[in-house]
Amino acid sequence: MNIAIVGATGYSGIELLRLLLNHPEANLTYLISNSQSNKQLSEVYPHFSGVKESMLKTLDIPKVAKEVDVVFFATPSGVSKNFVPEFLEYGVKCIDLSGDFRLKDPLLYEKWYKNSSASEKNLEKAVYGLSEIYENDVKEASLIANPGCYPTATLLGLLPALKEKWIKSDSIIIDGKSGVSGAGRSVSIGTHFAETNENLKAYKLGSHQHIPEIEQILHTESGIQSNVTFSTHLVPMTRGIMCTMYADLQEHKSTGEIIDLYKQFYEGKPFVRIRPEDHWPTTKEVSASNYCDIGFMSDARTGRLTIVSVIDNVVKGAAGQAVQNLNIMMGLDAKTGLNLSPVYP
Amino acid sequence: MNIAIVGATGYSGIELLRLLLNHPEANLTYLISNSQSNKQLSEVYPHFSGVKESMLKTLDIPKVAKEVDVVFFATPSGVSKNFVPEFLEYGVKCIDLSGDFRLKDPLLYEKWYKNSSASEKNLEKAVYGLSEIYENDVKEASLIANPGCYPTATLLGLLPALKEKWIKSDSIIIDGKSGVSGAGRSVSIGTHFAETNENLKAYKLGSHQHIPEIEQILHTESGIQSNVTFSTHLVPMTRGIMCTMYADLQEHKSTGEIIDLYKQFYEGKPFVRIRPEDHWPTTKEVSASNYCDIGFMSDARTGRLTIVSVIDNVVKGAAGQAVQNLNIMMGLDAKTGLNLSPVYP
Amino acid sequence: MNIAIVGATGYSGIELLRLLLNHPEANLTYLISNSQSNKQLSEVYPHFSGVKESMLKTLDIPKVAKEVDVVFFATPSGVSKNFVPEFLEYGVKCIDLSGDFRLKDPLLYEKWYKNSSASEKNLEKAVYGLSEIYENDVKEASLIANPGCYPTATLLGLLPALKEKWIKSDSIIIDGKSGVSGAGRSVSIGTHFAETNENLKAYKLGSHQHIPEIEQILHTESGIQSNVTFSTHLVPMTRGIMCTMYADLQEHKSTGEIIDLYKQFYEGKPFVRIRPEDHWPTTKEVSASNYCDIGFMSDARTGRLTIVSVIDNVVKGAAGQAVQNLNIMMGLDAKTGLNLSPVYP
Amino acid sequence: MNIAIVGATGYSGIELLRLLLNHPEANLTYLISNSQSNKQLSEVYPHFSGVKESMLKTLDIPKVAKEVDVVFFATPSGVSKNFVPEFLEYGVKCIDLSGDFRLKDPLLYEKWYKNSSASEKNLEKAVYGLSEIYENDVKEASLIANPGCYPTATLLGLLPALKEKWIKSDSIIIDGKSGVSGAGRSVSIGTHFAETNENLKAYKLGSHQHIPEIEQILHTESGIQSNVTFSTHLVPMTRGIMCTMYADLQEHKSTGEIIDLYKQFYEGKPFVRIRPEDHWPTTKEVSASNYCDIGFMSDARTGRLTIVSVIDNVVKGAAGQAVQNLNIMMGLDAKTGLNLSPVYP
Repeated sequence: MNIAIVGATGYSGIELLRLLLNHPEANLTYLISNSQSNKQLSEVYPHFSGVKESMLKTLDIPKVAKEVDVVFFATPSGVSKNFVPEFLEYGVKCIDLSGDFRLKDPLLYEKWYKNSSASEKNLEKAVYGLSEIYENDVKEASLIANPGCYPTATLLGLLPALKEKWIKSDSIIIDGKSGVSGAGRSVSIGTHFAETNENLKAYKLGSHQHIPEIEQILHTESGIQSNVTFSTHLVPMTRGIMCTMYADLQEHKSTGEIIDLYKQFYEGKPFVRIRPEDHWPTTKEVSASNYCDIGFMSDARTGRLTIVSVIDNVVKGAAGQAVQNLNIMMGLDAKTGLNLSPVYP
Repeated sequence: MNIAIVGATGYSGIELLRLLLNHPEANLTYLISNSQSNKQLSEVYPHFSGVKESMLKTLDIPKVAKEVDVVFFATPSGVSKNFVPEFLEYGVKCIDLSGDFRLKDPLLYEKWYKNSSASEKNLEKAVYGLSEIYENDVKEASLIANPGCYPTATLLGLLPALKEKWIKSDSIIIDGKSGVSGAGRSVSIGTHFAETNENLKAYKLGSHQHIPEIEQILHTESGIQSNVTFSTHLVPMTRGIMCTMYADLQEHKSTGEIIDLYKQFYEGKPFVRIRPEDHWPTTKEVSASNYCDIGFMSDARTGRLTIVSVIDNVVKGAAGQAVQNLNIMMGLDAKTGLNLSPVYP
Repeated sequence: MNIAIVGATGYSGIELLRLLLNHPEANLTYLISNSQSNKQLSEVYPHFSGVKESMLKTLDIPKVAKEVDVVFFATPSGVSKNFVPEFLEYGVKCIDLSGDFRLKDPLLYEKWYKNSSASEKNLEKAVYGLSEIYENDVKEASLIANPGCYPTATLLGLLPALKEKWIKSDSIIIDGKSGVSGAGRSVSIGTHFAETNENLKAYKLGSHQHIPEIEQILHTESGIQSNVTFSTHLVPMTRGIMCTMYADLQEHKSTGEIIDLYKQFYEGKPFVRIRPEDHWPTTKEVSASNYCDIGFMSDARTGRLTIVSVIDNVVKGAAGQAVQNLNIMMGLDAKTGLNLSPVYP
Repeated sequence: MNIAIVGATGYSGIELLRLLLNHPEANLTYLISNSQSNKQLSEVYPHFSGVKESMLKTLDIPKVAKEVDVVFFATPSGVSKNFVPEFLEYGVKCIDLSGDFRLKDPLLYEKWYKNSSASEKNLEKAVYGLSEIYENDVKEASLIANPGCYPTATLLGLLPALKEKWIKSDSIIIDGKSGVSGAGRSVSIGTHFAETNENLKAYKLGSHQHIPEIEQILHTESGIQSNVTFSTHLVPMTRGIMCTMYADLQEHKSTGEIIDLYKQFYEGKPFVRIRPEDHWPTTKEVSASNYCDIGFMSDARTGRLTIVSVIDNVVKGAAGQAVQNLNIMMGLDAKTGLNLSPVYP
């Protein structure tokens, strides 16, 4: 497969590079970066010296479309919606890591992203690439809306219990915690080392653009429309997301019963690991890998279920999940090129 | 005032030292450390060289009691209950930073601490040293049970709304996040740098010994007995606690109304700072200081209130609050010796 | 004393604030910040809420000069040289934390700072504020050139052995290591959390502007003009500088003899602490304090002396040393307002 | 190839696991851990769940020797010397990551390791596995002494200039800086998070056991016996080593000339990357990879050369280099299984 990456010099872009360089079927034909075009990749990121030598280019759609089978967009929101339609017309498959094609309702996009939406036609065409749930749709897709980092951790953690109607959909509270790489490479006081190190910050409470994405899928899968409480926190580490989720149980289930349900639900899904009772996931245990680890505590005292879900935000929350979608879309084993052990410690 | 610290070489002990060295009325008469006795303080902690030169001693109650006015216990749970009664008989005031005298119900202590309780007589005598709430009791106290770190951040964040009956007591969920100094100086794999750095871990979900302490005060202050959901997470930083709290509003109140309520409630309380709308507390903004900063988001979409509360776990969550109690108990201004700006960045 | 701080919102500026708020004789009359003028200090730095409420102002020299006794400049290089002369004419004493008045030779400034120098007249007037060496000059000064962070750690570590002619001046190699706050608050890729955390970088090798400052003082104090090798490294922590220094011994001296020499040299200097044999300084042991800790290893195998010196770059390397100079210049005890224990852990 | 790892649960052991799981020719037959035997690997290290499920075993040499081709020892010093001889007699090749077979002179081992040495016969048999220098010997070896982490970074940085006699061997000073994983997984106050984070420490100055290892190879390769000054520092990060090295040039060479020499010397060596002028290596640029990056500054002012060399201590400084040696010893391409991009950010 010949592949182009648009937005190759952001953190998701270089993680796609790291993973695809290890992928036996992928040929990196074009690395596109408007901000860094006509530079060598290794000039922008010296760690790629001797690993991948390539010139960064500006986007020339007809030229790229002629040579590649798949385009990844690792661009900020508001970019891919302008280029995806043309690629699709050329018959090139698109995997979009931004939020541009995730929300089916254009008004919702406009409200939460404060920007004009992609066309309804293309929103309809887009398949939400949470392949543990939508594998069959992904197989047939020409356009993948790769899920956001928080929604990935959240939805993998909530859906089995919600679909089984074991938890009340209107009781869901998600306390999200992310490493700083989630904010991307743009410099700001909020990601300055001296302001971030030895510091824990809450941010965007109740206004994060991942809220409608989570609610859309919860609605689709449960049949019930509910609003979630969703908070986000910036943790002084580079990689990793943890979502601690709280929901009222319809009736009491033991932690063991919950674990059994999840194990059954994710049977055959290679990237979801269900933790045994009293073992809580940690972000380092999934670092630089495509795993999502999930642990549980059902509390008889309160009638609530606590679910803890962790991913590496740059891998399962972005580039790794995109490669997983590539594999499924192209008829390969989902694990191709992703068969990597977490890096520990 | 002549003062003894029992457990002077733990992290709470040395923070007491740092603060009391800056206190105009305190004279550090005895530094007790059974594990390090007969060593110089500066041998165990070289940062005290030239700041405080003192021999660490074993505990000889009659001798100490003769010379001091107040004893601080900065000991692990299960220690102070054995020594406090004798000091009280000598007429020495005691401030206990451990959990030994916080729970009024001995059975609760035995259940959550897995240890035998202090006597009911002394439990009754103990005043819970959350002086923003119990200032008058603290003034009269001979024995202070200094609040735990998580309960301090939690209770200061919840009590105004709960006492006003604006939130439902049975809907309370507390997502706690702590720096690693909260685990003390004892070495373990769980606090090893290589296992903790670049890692975020959930721990003790639903079983943390601070749960009954929080519930006891919520019960006392609201008149309603409810159980809370309480989760704890270890964040890769040394100091700081953040509690993100969720509760259902009885009826809608705007964020502004909430802020007004809290400003009024904490009027004249020098260590609580209420953040303006859309400004979220961060742990660094209270680092090495006795402040508790609190921010709010009232969400009309869900009918829930989110409260974010931060403290430095070693100061307001331990030694600083203990000095604040000392001041009030001894008739001094609560700010004496605590008039320190946060250390930033 | 009435005091103005020009550049109050940089990291050195806010550390001056923290220290002067704790100073019994200092009255903060003016906080000047051109970039943030007409904002409340607590708007820019919320950690000052309730600690210091003050409006940030633009610099109006005649107005400020009328009301204050001393002006601190906590500005980037190239700023203070424009304003100091006028303040001096008004009879206002100036303490400059930038490099503008440190180098006696204007050509040297122009070469290393790539900027035009202050006038020779004022360069001559300026006293280099390393008060452990130049205390008498500081007492008489109207203009203090407060030493750079690396030079402070380096010179305190080297001068006793060099003045005694125990080490060869042309053999000196300084391996400097700094926390990220040394780079200031300006945002850049080089100080972005995700690029700095879990990373150790060398920078400005052989071209750091602190090189001529170090060489000037070594020359003055030893009578011999030599060039030093000086390397700098960025360490993933916020505060702290360590300089590891290497020099050939003229003839063998034991570590114990070296320690004795330094103890004698720094007798009565409250902020220099000489470490015992086999005890190596660490940056945390001086954190948030004005101490400089120094340790030694004399190696009979190589005939070389290794000296390790640590300071908090924001305190002894900037604001703390500036307050120390203020005290000495104004006839106060050098420790006034600086009597703070390091913050540990 | 069937492979056993003795000491599979230390940090070098699990990194061997991570790399060998990605190696197309390696079959992990035995994971030996005396301290954790009869536990599942994923119980000790949950990040291996679903990646590698295997029982940890005690060492039974005859049984292991019958089934494997190569044994890796990732054990503390003093262990492998007891087991290697028997494996060699069985005809099993051994790669020892500890220091037991690195020093040719048994007395030197005894002096620096404070322990009895391996037999002279086996010391003689051992090939020092710095394969960029000793590739031909590695090809023929039955026992590899895998180099230490600091010596790897140091020797790759020094040898080209030293062998060319461009630098004076008796002028060499090495300032080493390491992440905390280098101290292994054993818990201690010195690696406790709260004591290590936001802290920079010097340690083992002049007494590190890597000193004789470095001197031995410098002697062999230059023909001149000299002592080096070698200092080590603990940096608050998990992975990474940087060695900043200083040496007097015999006669002036420009940085460009130095770079040319090194590029030529390491031509065809896939894991050494020479940085262009004014580009300094950083540890993150080699993180989780087998690269060693080297940069230079030749200073006409002082006549000294500064060399900066970085590796990931757990990869090129331990497990990665061991796999590289395995490949060469077994006639495979040196890059087999090591073709990994650094993990960034």
